[in-house]
Amino acid sequence: MKTVIGIDLGGTNVRVAKVTEDGQILQEFKSPSYSQEGPEKVTSNIISLIKKIDGVKDCVGIGIGVPGPVDTIANVMKMSTNLKDFTNYPLGELLENEFGLPCYLDNDANVAGLAEALLGAGRGEKIVYYITHSTGIGGALVVAGQVISGKNGYAGEVGNIIVTRDGEKINHLNVGAIENLASGLALIKAAQTKIDPKIDTAYELFKLAKENHPVALEIIDRMAFDFASMCSAVGHVVDPAVFVIGGGVSQSHEQYFPLIKKYYQGLVHTGMRDVQFKPAELDEPGILGAAMLPISHGK
Amino acid sequence: MKTVIGIDLGGTNVRVAKVTEDGQILQEFKSPSYSQEGPEKVTSNIISLIKKIDGVKDCVGIGIGVPGPVDTIANVMKMSTNLKDFTNYPLGELLENEFGLPCYLDNDANVAGLAEALLGAGRGEKIVYYITHSTGIGGALVVAGQVISGKNGYAGEVGNIIVTRDGEKINHLNVGAIENLASGLALIKAAQTKIDPKIDTAYELFKLAKENHPVALEIIDRMAFDFASMCSAVGHVVDPAVFVIGGGVSQSHEQYFPLIKKYYQGLVHTGMRDVQFKPAELDEPGILGAAMLPISHGK
Repeated sequence: MKTVIGIDLGGTNVRVAKVTEDGQILQEFKSPSYSQEGPEKVTSNIISLIKKIDGVKDCVGIGIGVPGPVDTIANVMKMSTNLKDFTNYPLGELLENEFGLPCYLDNDANVAGLAEALLGAGRGEKIVYYITHSTGIGGALVVAGQVISGKNGYAGEVGNIIVTRDGEKINHLNVGAIENLASGLALIKAAQTKIDPKIDTAYELFKLAKENHPVALEIIDRMAFDFASMCSAVGHVVDPAVFVIGGGVSQSHEQYFPLIKKYYQGLVHTGMRDVQFKPAELDEPGILGAAMLPISHGK
Repeated sequence: MKTVIGIDLGGTNVRVAKVTEDGQILQEFKSPSYSQEGPEKVTSNIISLIKKIDGVKDCVGIGIGVPGPVDTIANVMKMSTNLKDFTNYPLGELLENEFGLPCYLDNDANVAGLAEALLGAGRGEKIVYYITHSTGIGGALVVAGQVISGKNGYAGEVGNIIVTRDGEKINHLNVGAIENLASGLALIKAAQTKIDPKIDTAYELFKLAKENHPVALEIIDRMAFDFASMCSAVGHVVDPAVFVIGGGVSQSHEQYFPLIKKYYQGLVHTGMRDVQFKPAELDEPGILGAAMLPISHGK
């Protein structure tokens, strides 16, 4: 069976693993990513982690998930908030030269989406839309086992989709952008303002809702409608077979996926109503998805 | 050079042509489509038109554009408003059996988008989003020369994307759906209400705007903002290199594409602002795009 090197590069840590094409992690090493010490340091650290892996030469390729949009043609990051000076830095090329293996970069949401599409809740479906519902909101389109990253790597930046014209400009996102209305952070803010300023996780809000707290229920219901509005925009563009939703908030999926589905069905054409909303299944979508990048490119 | 049979099947007419893989129409026949006389009549008429073409056996396949969503796996229409009883009717299979050639169906907007992506304003780009701006609004995503039709053939139903929560339910589309705000029909209605009840084409509205009629200018400006809002939703899902816009309204592109581009740039991330907005180039995208279906499937 083919094996691949998967790298999950984050602002805090980096993990490097040897993975089989069906998603088994054979060996894994982790360290700080040294993200603020410049790309040379980050790269030399990754190279030393890869060298610890047995049988690198037998692997068919290297895949890397990075936190930010990627130009998948040039194989470089287009913008890097959490990795200092990584914009346009040729990490992929450096690793190709070092190990003689093809190397593919993509952003962390796309990579997680690829993992879920190939190995997780979306497996067997031709068109999967993955959404990470966490502190922020991001997405990934996977068609026939391939991530569609877009011209500049911004495909999947669905957190910036406008679902209402009401509201104020509060950050770099659009007025009425879904991320400011329905992300984990937005839920916490709403709970703090409307219920208790001491609430500091979305989990607490869902706990109150479970106890039938009327305001908690209202906040979640409203979030579900807003989230469904975003999904309906996505649906009218790509008509996926399934929305796979991961990220911290989705751990409470039993309390809000049915609401999303109900509202979604009211916001799309009749023939689109059979779409599924499934929670993500994988514990380590970042490293598995990175490993799946070379596989999805036919390596 | 490969040749293909392209069929543009509409509610009124049907056209059948022999086309080269680079988009030259070698031979073409046209007749009424007999759309209200049932699918057997429509099919037997198409078969007789194909039989008029020289060298059908040397063609590599048949492509058909139809007016409505298509299940491209089962190769049947999912809904047919303008072709009586065509839902789930096996037109593709019947033509395959008759001529021994692979046959592919897709809806007319997808087919036009494919033509523009391969032969028209989008050629050379890996990710093209085509929008028909006509009586209604529809779209098509073409990635690496292939149309993404979606699970149920509803990918591209962008006319139903919500751009504002204001407004009333006026038809089967969502409240605030872009088609009801920015289509050719919506422009005519706005012009009738705000300028002159006798206006009955979008062209007249653009003519008034050219003469600096302030209300005409305002209607067009508002349409451009709404249209750009829809494009920003599409952009955040697929991040195309170019939006190619066709259809009757787009003939006035010089008067409103620059406005769409300006508003779009204010509604997307900085790195997405270099997207192009181009008018469609082809005179016959329906028949050419239908002919490109077998080519895009590797025939």
